[in-house]
Amino acid sequence: MSTDLSKFFYPKSIAVIGASSKPGTLGYELLGNLMNFGYNGKLFPVNPKADAIHSIKSYKSLLEIKDDVDLAVIMLGKHLVLTAIDECKKKKVKSVIVITAGFKEVGEEGVTLEKELIAKTKKYGMRMLGPNCMGIINTKKEVQMNGTFIKGTPVPGGIGFVSQSGALGAAVLRIIEKYDIGFSQFVSIGNKADVSENDVIDYWKDNDDVNVITVYLESFSDPKEFLRICKEVTKTKPVIAIKAAKTNAGMKAASSHTGALASADTVAETLFEQSGVIRVNTVEDMFNLGKAFDRARLPVGNRVAILTNAGGPAILTVDEADRCGLDVVNLSEKTKKKLREIVVAEASVNNPVDLLPSANADVYKKATELLLADENVDAAVLILGPPLMFDTVEITKYMCEAVNKSNKCAIVVVMSQDEIIAEVAKQMPVHPPIFNSAEKAAWAIGEMLKYKAWKESPDGKVKQFNVNTKGVRSIIKKYKTGNVYLDFDDVYDILNHYKMPIVETLIARNVQQSIYDANKIGFPVVAKVFGRELVHKSDVGGVALNIQDEDELINVESRIIANLKEKGIDDKLEGFILQPFAKIEDGVETILGAVKDANAGHLLMFGLGGIFVEVFKDVKFKIAPLTTADAKSIVRSIKSYEILKGVRGKKSVDIDFVEENILKLSKLVTDFPEFTEIDLNPFVFSPNRNKSKILDARIKLG
Amino acid sequence: MSTDLSKFFYPKSIAVIGASSKPGTLGYELLGNLMNFGYNGKLFPVNPKADAIHSIKSYKSLLEIKDDVDLAVIMLGKHLVLTAIDECKKKKVKSVIVITAGFKEVGEEGVTLEKELIAKTKKYGMRMLGPNCMGIINTKKEVQMNGTFIKGTPVPGGIGFVSQSGALGAAVLRIIEKYDIGFSQFVSIGNKADVSENDVIDYWKDNDDVNVITVYLESFSDPKEFLRICKEVTKTKPVIAIKAAKTNAGMKAASSHTGALASADTVAETLFEQSGVIRVNTVEDMFNLGKAFDRARLPVGNRVAILTNAGGPAILTVDEADRCGLDVVNLSEKTKKKLREIVVAEASVNNPVDLLPSANADVYKKATELLLADENVDAAVLILGPPLMFDTVEITKYMCEAVNKSNKCAIVVVMSQDEIIAEVAKQMPVHPPIFNSAEKAAWAIGEMLKYKAWKESPDGKVKQFNVNTKGVRSIIKKYKTGNVYLDFDDVYDILNHYKMPIVETLIARNVQQSIYDANKIGFPVVAKVFGRELVHKSDVGGVALNIQDEDELINVESRIIANLKEKGIDDKLEGFILQPFAKIEDGVETILGAVKDANAGHLLMFGLGGIFVEVFKDVKFKIAPLTTADAKSIVRSIKSYEILKGVRGKKSVDIDFVEENILKLSKLVTDFPEFTEIDLNPFVFSPNRNKSKILDARIKLG
Repeated sequence: MSTDLSKFFYPKSIAVIGASSKPGTLGYELLGNLMNFGYNGKLFPVNPKADAIHSIKSYKSLLEIKDDVDLAVIMLGKHLVLTAIDECKKKKVKSVIVITAGFKEVGEEGVTLEKELIAKTKKYGMRMLGPNCMGIINTKKEVQMNGTFIKGTPVPGGIGFVSQSGALGAAVLRIIEKYDIGFSQFVSIGNKADVSENDVIDYWKDNDDVNVITVYLESFSDPKEFLRICKEVTKTKPVIAIKAAKTNAGMKAASSHTGALASADTVAETLFEQSGVIRVNTVEDMFNLGKAFDRARLPVGNRVAILTNAGGPAILTVDEADRCGLDVVNLSEKTKKKLREIVVAEASVNNPVDLLPSANADVYKKATELLLADENVDAAVLILGPPLMFDTVEITKYMCEAVNKSNKCAIVVVMSQDEIIAEVAKQMPVHPPIFNSAEKAAWAIGEMLKYKAWKESPDGKVKQFNVNTKGVRSIIKKYKTGNVYLDFDDVYDILNHYKMPIVETLIARNVQQSIYDANKIGFPVVAKVFGRELVHKSDVGGVALNIQDEDELINVESRIIANLKEKGIDDKLEGFILQPFAKIEDGVETILGAVKDANAGHLLMFGLGGIFVEVFKDVKFKIAPLTTADAKSIVRSIKSYEILKGVRGKKSVDIDFVEENILKLSKLVTDFPEFTEIDLNPFVFSPNRNKSKILDARIKLG
Repeated sequence: MSTDLSKFFYPKSIAVIGASSKPGTLGYELLGNLMNFGYNGKLFPVNPKADAIHSIKSYKSLLEIKDDVDLAVIMLGKHLVLTAIDECKKKKVKSVIVITAGFKEVGEEGVTLEKELIAKTKKYGMRMLGPNCMGIINTKKEVQMNGTFIKGTPVPGGIGFVSQSGALGAAVLRIIEKYDIGFSQFVSIGNKADVSENDVIDYWKDNDDVNVITVYLESFSDPKEFLRICKEVTKTKPVIAIKAAKTNAGMKAASSHTGALASADTVAETLFEQSGVIRVNTVEDMFNLGKAFDRARLPVGNRVAILTNAGGPAILTVDEADRCGLDVVNLSEKTKKKLREIVVAEASVNNPVDLLPSANADVYKKATELLLADENVDAAVLILGPPLMFDTVEITKYMCEAVNKSNKCAIVVVMSQDEIIAEVAKQMPVHPPIFNSAEKAAWAIGEMLKYKAWKESPDGKVKQFNVNTKGVRSIIKKYKTGNVYLDFDDVYDILNHYKMPIVETLIARNVQQSIYDANKIGFPVVAKVFGRELVHKSDVGGVALNIQDEDELINVESRIIANLKEKGIDDKLEGFILQPFAKIEDGVETILGAVKDANAGHLLMFGLGGIFVEVFKDVKFKIAPLTTADAKSIVRSIKSYEILKGVRGKKSVDIDFVEENILKLSKLVTDFPEFTEIDLNPFVFSPNRNKSKILDARIKLG
């Protein structure tokens, strides 16, 4: 069952505690906004010193109100808020909005006060929005609530917007009319002491008034919950988010390759990708795309037609369409013939169709109809450059009418004429999305297609494996302190317990024993330094491949010891690791790893290994536990997937086996969250799964 | 000496041939624009049927005018244009603008007419702008010429704008007031039958009225000239360009690796990069950046301060600043202390400085002054979110005043309040750039820094080498037909003539001879199939490395022959190439190549070689001839430069030797433009230049 926030969004009565009759105060502006927008419920201003505010009877106290109160909006001084909460409890108000600022955001004293506030509302079984928030809006005809103190008039539509930043919300509300951004519901979550983005998104999942969810976040309240909820919601309706990256203290000290490759933004990037949330970087992009989802149909395919009266913008649009995976398709002969009948001789009837500046409203309308009727066309970008001698509003309306009659995806673009957008929107309540940039329209259609693919993609499952968890448990027990790398022999055993193909390994404590071990393994062998503190082995010249015989082994190990001495770290040497030398000519070196983030849990990483790891950073992350779909996706989303699949006549590696190992590592960190960093690097995959081997591995205990 | 277009931009008298008294016609609108904008010279309407137009005496013919005419604007029907040119010749007019359309752009008949037009103007020694153009603007007080037929009033400033697309130019002129885009000069070059973008950019180089050059292009008139001119101009003033990529027929059929990696956009991308032109993708970006260059100082360093009254936008700005290479620096203690004295208690005086919504104009002004005075700060982004209770115009003006007094780079941002931009610009003619997006401001400062680095970078020289051009000439002579790959032995000789380190190579015509050759070279050897039509050797399993002895060689060659048979292409086998087996463990596989574009000439390519070439496409291009600076730049701009410099304890390859070989290849294609494709792949570079070898090479003759 999803979170119930209906008393916030659909209240039948609202008490404004701290309403004021003094213009310019928040208490005056908020009540004024509620009245001016035409709230369709009962309003009860509460103010101990006033009889009437904004022509409405005012109450000295909440308890004086006889009617039921669904929602209380508190805008008192911060030290009066707790008392007001007590009154709400007495009045049996279950939903409160605390507009008041001065809590967590101002430092220590505020943190304490906020904790008391949370404790109280929790004790009383209330849901609270805020503190330090801007309020709430529902434009639905039956509600018509503008419960914010911001200037600007909300425009009705199907977009839900939840904003963690008040200022950004305010900025957006200023431009909604201009850019025709139709909001269904808006909520400023402020310090999100109780109601968080997760609650709101979850609530909107089953809310028919919200077609598209837009989110502005500065931090995740609970990343795992965000992932769980959004994975579900995005299968029903699109979620578009802006998230500032900034600091991520969670993985700061990571010393593994995996940890080093996870940036401050990796958690956010991974969360969005894995949950199907569309991430954008600017407010403009968020609402352009939101508008497109809200007002246009999802395109069925990627074949796009472009209509224009000016060559330049169309060329730029073709480029962008191409970049976004759209196909600027050949029109059918029938369409071209019919177009030819309505356009001037110099016009081009090939896609992009250029009507030239002489095209009037009628030509535009007919051309739009013809393009959208073409069986080769899935979607259209309809561009209107500023016409020299026609009425832009009229042409735009004619185009919109043609689009309204079609069941295909189309975006109308009025270049450099923002004022037209609002005008047409006003005259024609039902209309397709109208943009002011043709490139953005192409981009939006590309994003809609990607969303469609996501929506239709299978969900995947968390796979179980028959592994020896007991064995791993008993190894962990040996370690008394945390924050330590496991000895290699323990790493070796753990991977064997999980049936992951660590290469046969013997550890020799000295040169003499290494000769014995090498003979046991069989030449040629690989020799590596062994030492808990010798982390990046090749940095200290401590890895030798393809050692042919005893003499070479002795030479190599002597050289390694000399190298370590030169660097003054020979006391860190604890022995030598001996392994068979496996040619990786027919295998591909990858890296598979995991790193734990304090908030989001374990992130698994997979990508191209070897010396290219740091240079190309061709790796992808997923949050554990991974599903089979996640494993498929991570393997296919790295660029080197082409190499895994075999280039220049090479055979493909066993991709199923790659996925299996990714899922096993996911299981390992899920079973044992105490492992904070794991590097399986290089993990060489070959066409034959039996020849696929982990050549080196490190595990850190938290 | 640069191109002289002064009679176009600074005419003392203009004849408008085809002026009309009928509102709505181009002839009426253009004359009206000239008058309304207050042209400071003499206007002579020419129309056989009118006595006066727009209250000015009109002339039946150009020859009736007694005064000298500097510039003629022709807007007659297309079949009257040639006659008008004849009259211009008689009247000794040397500069003509042909607004009339219906030439090259409409097909065959128009192409013929345009050719006649070009021939005539050339014969008469005239310079012609157009045909099919929108005209010209110069906002300078002494000229004040709006010689276009477009609606909208030009705003004076320091930006020069040359547009190949009329529609795009028109769209821009509609928004210049709104976004405060100050033009100094604007020119629509239309079909650029004579005056091209190159002429205009060259002319603006020494024009003090133009501080920044902006360019919209659909095609390059002469790419090599563009490169030569822009390389010079960008050292004086910034050039910002939009170029739609679209088709590039020049390299379509390339079959080499180098050719395959060059995309339709490579020529444009390379031209811009190599000439220091800043490429942007949208009109918005072009003019935001143009405004920044025009109205702000170049930042001295990358340390940026951010001022705001709202947290959210500031966080997004920090992210973008970081992405653009800016350092959101720690403010000095002195600054923080002084800020503390003027802000409210809850405000943050750490960068980004958050004044909170309560900040008024005075606080904003003082904070701006303090930030710009801080010795740690090179540049500032000053953000104003919509204030609840203050006058935005006043705050903005106060900020602008503080910036005007400073000598540092600063951009003022009024979020979501476009109307403020125009208002402040009107009230305060001298003002810093005012943006409506804080992220764009951070981006613009980043671009300004990059431009500064380019401006200060050394020019480089084309280096000469002592090579045997005669030897190469005589090899080329052997080939009677073009479009053919040279035999490997010829390739081998050519590279030796240019002292490029092709690996020692013997070519055996059969297995027997290959055994003899292998022994001559000394085992281990490499064997490769040899055959003019066997292009991608590893695709046919035709490369064997590290062959230890005669038996292995026989085995390998038998297997290769069997493979070819299986694919049915054994008749293409002409023999075997034998080379010493060089371990590339301490070397790095690169690819160095060249491909000829029909318009831009030879593009050199350098990048990471081996199986990663196609996957990572980590290659860069430069147009030949390369300077020493170009060679340095190409090597340092690939991601794998890190690998060349040595990772994980490996030594750096000999970078000087890499550059030397790049310059030699540049010389080779410059000396012999008949080579259309060259692949040196792999070209293995090692720390020791004597061990650096070209392991395979192909050269195609055009």
